[in-house]
Amino acid sequence: MKKIAIQGQIASFHHVAARQLFGENCTVLTCETFADVFDAVQNGEAAVGICAVENSLYGTITDTYDLLQQHNLWIGGEVYLPITQCLIGFPDASLADIREVYSHPVALAQCDRYLETMLPSARRNEHHDTAGSVADVAKWKDHTKAAIASREAADQYGLRVLVPGIETNKQNYTRFIAFFPKKQPATTANKTTLTFTLPNKPGALHTFLGLFANQNINVTSTLSRPIAGSPWEYQFYMDFAAGKDELRMINALASAYKDYAIRILGSYTAGQLPQK
Amino acid sequence: MKKIAIQGQIASFHHVAARQLFGENCTVLTCETFADVFDAVQNGEAAVGICAVENSLYGTITDTYDLLQQHNLWIGGEVYLPITQCLIGFPDASLADIREVYSHPVALAQCDRYLETMLPSARRNEHHDTAGSVADVAKWKDHTKAAIASREAADQYGLRVLVPGIETNKQNYTRFIAFFPKKQPATTANKTTLTFTLPNKPGALHTFLGLFANQNINVTSTLSRPIAGSPWEYQFYMDFAAGKDELRMINALASAYKDYAIRILGSYTAGQLPQK
Repeated sequence: MKKIAIQGQIASFHHVAARQLFGENCTVLTCETFADVFDAVQNGEAAVGICAVENSLYGTITDTYDLLQQHNLWIGGEVYLPITQCLIGFPDASLADIREVYSHPVALAQCDRYLETMLPSARRNEHHDTAGSVADVAKWKDHTKAAIASREAADQYGLRVLVPGIETNKQNYTRFIAFFPKKQPATTANKTTLTFTLPNKPGALHTFLGLFANQNINVTSTLSRPIAGSPWEYQFYMDFAAGKDELRMINALASAYKDYAIRILGSYTAGQLPQK
Repeated sequence: MKKIAIQGQIASFHHVAARQLFGENCTVLTCETFADVFDAVQNGEAAVGICAVENSLYGTITDTYDLLQQHNLWIGGEVYLPITQCLIGFPDASLADIREVYSHPVALAQCDRYLETMLPSARRNEHHDTAGSVADVAKWKDHTKAAIASREAADQYGLRVLVPGIETNKQNYTRFIAFFPKKQPATTANKTTLTFTLPNKPGALHTFLGLFANQNINVTSTLSRPIAGSPWEYQFYMDFAAGKDELRMINALASAYKDYAIRILGSYTAGQLPQK
């Protein structure tokens, strides 16, 4: 069975993403950081790695792009996950019991309005992982403590969802990518991620994008990251809505390779934005 | 005297940026968060606000862009500051005394290699402000404690620079913007910041950039941010190398206004990248 490296613990959102992409029966290797996930795939400990690349509220997760730049891996899949945060506690706890809430700082921030309104006197404690905060609360056996995480985490650690969907903004989605040590077949791929640099002159980005616009290929996401040691020069990352083996992409890339320093980071089937 | 709202305390990097832009004799209003700086300018408590927008190693400071979107202010200036981190302690302390180091988590990360090599057994403590960590160390009067901050912070709080320039990557610059409640004269401006959205169709970004490329105007920085509530629609932020009153920019904007939802966030004289 394929071993999949994820950031966070069992039942973390990364684990939910892994199951969506590879089914219920995948074996996971839990890692503490994104860098650990990349290393596990690069050194052969895992066959696939999964990392978040973008959240609909918070934007690009730049760490993942920097790690893609530093490693020689291949993006072979993506999945969009709606992020539903649940207040999780002991089966017999009631809201009035809760004095302490544990979760990842981003999850705490996403549920800020609920916490202020419904649990104004509960103390908020930061944890490095949403699912891990549920595991800890379960371990402490203290009914005044609760965690914020996925429904799956409540099931996993024998606790109960006290209140589902406590995030302030319901339009909360995260996009995850799956990356492999080697290039994957891309016959059904309809999305390609490229990284490139551009000369610092008028119209450079416009000219580059023209190669793809001429082939009727849409840009679905863009990012520019500074290049360490070269202040204000940028490494660009863009997703294009065409597979790398489609004729229009072959044409665009043939022109691009001639004049630009580009690298294909992967080509894969685009994930579907779920309906909430 | 103009009151300038800055994030962080006296002698923070934001304060150094304020002095570079407005001279030594400016009065500052110290704020805890970026949001407080924007609010102070919007509600008239300060005549100008200063916030970092980009660091050459870490990339765009997206908070600042989100706050620009939410407020109705005008970017009227920018400055690039080399970030030189110093290990700061008591005048008679020696390196061998240091058991605890305090600073902002980003500053601690920037000096990671130095701390690992030269102070492997010193404990690292996170503080919300670099200059504030120096103020605290000065107050505690404990020679085993040190802070990481600007040289200006050592002078301000009566401590000594034990070791200057301990950041790992010397190409460390931050760009700060100054924003005002009202539009500023832009006769000498040679840079303009725009925000806009684009229709989700092939070539949209290419077509938009064409309006500026046709006028020989370069893009110097780009950012796309998700729009809350509209997953995977983006708000773009771009800096263009022309003042808003230059004829070529007037031409480009006239075309852009016809077909796109754009807003000018400011126009100003481009800052100079300092030579280290």
